[in-house]
Amino acid sequence: MIALSMGEPAGIGPEVTAKAWQAGAPPFCAIGDAALYAGVPVVRVASIEEAAAAFGDALPVLHRPLPAPARPGVLDAANAPAVIAAIEEAVALARAGRAAAVVTCPIQKSVLTAAGFGHPGHTEFLGALAGTGVPPVMMLACPQLRVVPVTVHEPLARAIARLTPGLIAEHARVTHAALVRDFGIARPRLAVAGLNPHAGEAGTLGHEDAAIVAPAVAMLRAEGIEATGPHPPDTLFTALARPTYDAAICLYHDQALIPIKTLDMEGGVNVTLGLSIIRTSPDHGTALDIAGRGVASPNSLLAALRLADALGRTRTCGSR
Amino acid sequence: MIALSMGEPAGIGPEVTAKAWQAGAPPFCAIGDAALYAGVPVVRVASIEEAAAAFGDALPVLHRPLPAPARPGVLDAANAPAVIAAIEEAVALARAGRAAAVVTCPIQKSVLTAAGFGHPGHTEFLGALAGTGVPPVMMLACPQLRVVPVTVHEPLARAIARLTPGLIAEHARVTHAALVRDFGIARPRLAVAGLNPHAGEAGTLGHEDAAIVAPAVAMLRAEGIEATGPHPPDTLFTALARPTYDAAICLYHDQALIPIKTLDMEGGVNVTLGLSIIRTSPDHGTALDIAGRGVASPNSLLAALRLADALGRTRTCGSR
Repeated sequence: MIALSMGEPAGIGPEVTAKAWQAGAPPFCAIGDAALYAGVPVVRVASIEEAAAAFGDALPVLHRPLPAPARPGVLDAANAPAVIAAIEEAVALARAGRAAAVVTCPIQKSVLTAAGFGHPGHTEFLGALAGTGVPPVMMLACPQLRVVPVTVHEPLARAIARLTPGLIAEHARVTHAALVRDFGIARPRLAVAGLNPHAGEAGTLGHEDAAIVAPAVAMLRAEGIEATGPHPPDTLFTALARPTYDAAICLYHDQALIPIKTLDMEGGVNVTLGLSIIRTSPDHGTALDIAGRGVASPNSLLAALRLADALGRTRTCGSR
Repeated sequence: MIALSMGEPAGIGPEVTAKAWQAGAPPFCAIGDAALYAGVPVVRVASIEEAAAAFGDALPVLHRPLPAPARPGVLDAANAPAVIAAIEEAVALARAGRAAAVVTCPIQKSVLTAAGFGHPGHTEFLGALAGTGVPPVMMLACPQLRVVPVTVHEPLARAIARLTPGLIAEHARVTHAALVRDFGIARPRLAVAGLNPHAGEAGTLGHEDAAIVAPAVAMLRAEGIEATGPHPPDTLFTALARPTYDAAICLYHDQALIPIKTLDMEGGVNVTLGLSIIRTSPDHGTALDIAGRGVASPNSLLAALRLADALGRTRTCGSR
């Protein structure tokens, strides 16, 4: 059973949740205000354990009433504590072994920050709730590709300046461990992208590939991890290259996100690695501009629920 | 009629040329040693004007004998002057109006440099032979996407430091002119990519998008060019976004090359904009490692010949 946090009640989260239930998602239990989930039968459950039996006939909800009525597209800081509490409850259920995985609907950081939320984002909050002593690592996964950016939300020039062999290796190690434990891949193959065009072309197009990326790869190989690279970034994501590795370790946000969104705009799932629990989320935001209009696609949430279900089974039952 | 330069005789150029003729390429005339083109009927023509009538039955070649026998995979500096001469002859034919376009097979820069070739690459050489007072601009085109990188073969950090509104606008203007004249698009729509994640997210993820990219877009719009941006780079190449523009102006090598190679590894065609002639080339190198083994794919050369043919017709006959 997956615990699904409500996310921003004024965004598209409730709508895509209802649509995902309708579309045959694997069993999940929503944590939020039952009034949010319109157009489908809803059943209020007293505990997540009741959700399995209920799921076939209705969308099961652990009803946590909102202080203020939710209006699509209109943020209300009064509801921020409930948004945060839904995440905390989902994580607590997973940590207690009562949920196999957590899926989170998108939050609107600005309104949470105004209400005193002290974390830069969802991922960091989950790190605080269910960390394992390593920084949480973001993976984006679609059927054709898995990518892990080593640096994420920072200016590109600063991201380049901040790269070190240790930072790259740390992300690769967390990725490797998750691929073994949760994805059921006995000997994961990691392809580490270069930074410069053609991975620096023997130093003529920049020094970082030889000075920073290559030592990270050497370090990982010395630890017995099947890492290769630095690979020329432009050919790493071709149809021919993709089957040669299980995840690409990318050095900056767009090196990872451009190829996966080019391939699969909707199906991309965000997986947080390095937590004590399994957590996935759809790869879109609250989409306040289209909330309440009935046009939001549930495909990314569906993909997130399906991947969370598969990862939960692998962690519980071993290799798929 | 397209003039096709031989390129590096030890590479896969001759093999893919013969295969492209066999596969039904639009009419072209090869410029090189007739002995290079194996496995297909070859006819030596005295002038490019004879090639049209011959093309249906055999691969027409303007025979220019090599000083040293070509051996697949083995570079020989003795042949470097003939490689350069074939490019010069193809360009001269196009400049004289005797060829509608030039397509170039890949060259091996190292062996040409050793023989005194003073240009950083093919494109710069063509700029010297057929420039128009603007720097030649590289476009990569496939059926789903056209991209133009503003910076190309330099370290990523240096490329970022070198970006200015003027550099971006200059590339966009050359692209715009070529889309009108050669691609037959009356009002081309240019999408300018941002530099930082989410295009800087209102300055919180870097200043360059507001300080450098936005002024370039404003400058172009003031000139009547339909430019938009800076666009978040990760969503600019999705299936939904691609139909909204005719070319994406990208700020660095891999921002342009990752999406196009992710979509279409083989069909990508390199088009040089800003020359007085039309020039395309396949988007691969000499592939010395597989030369002579009969396994090279002609698809990229075929795509280059087809695009050159289409561009040549548009420039000659107007909008398609």
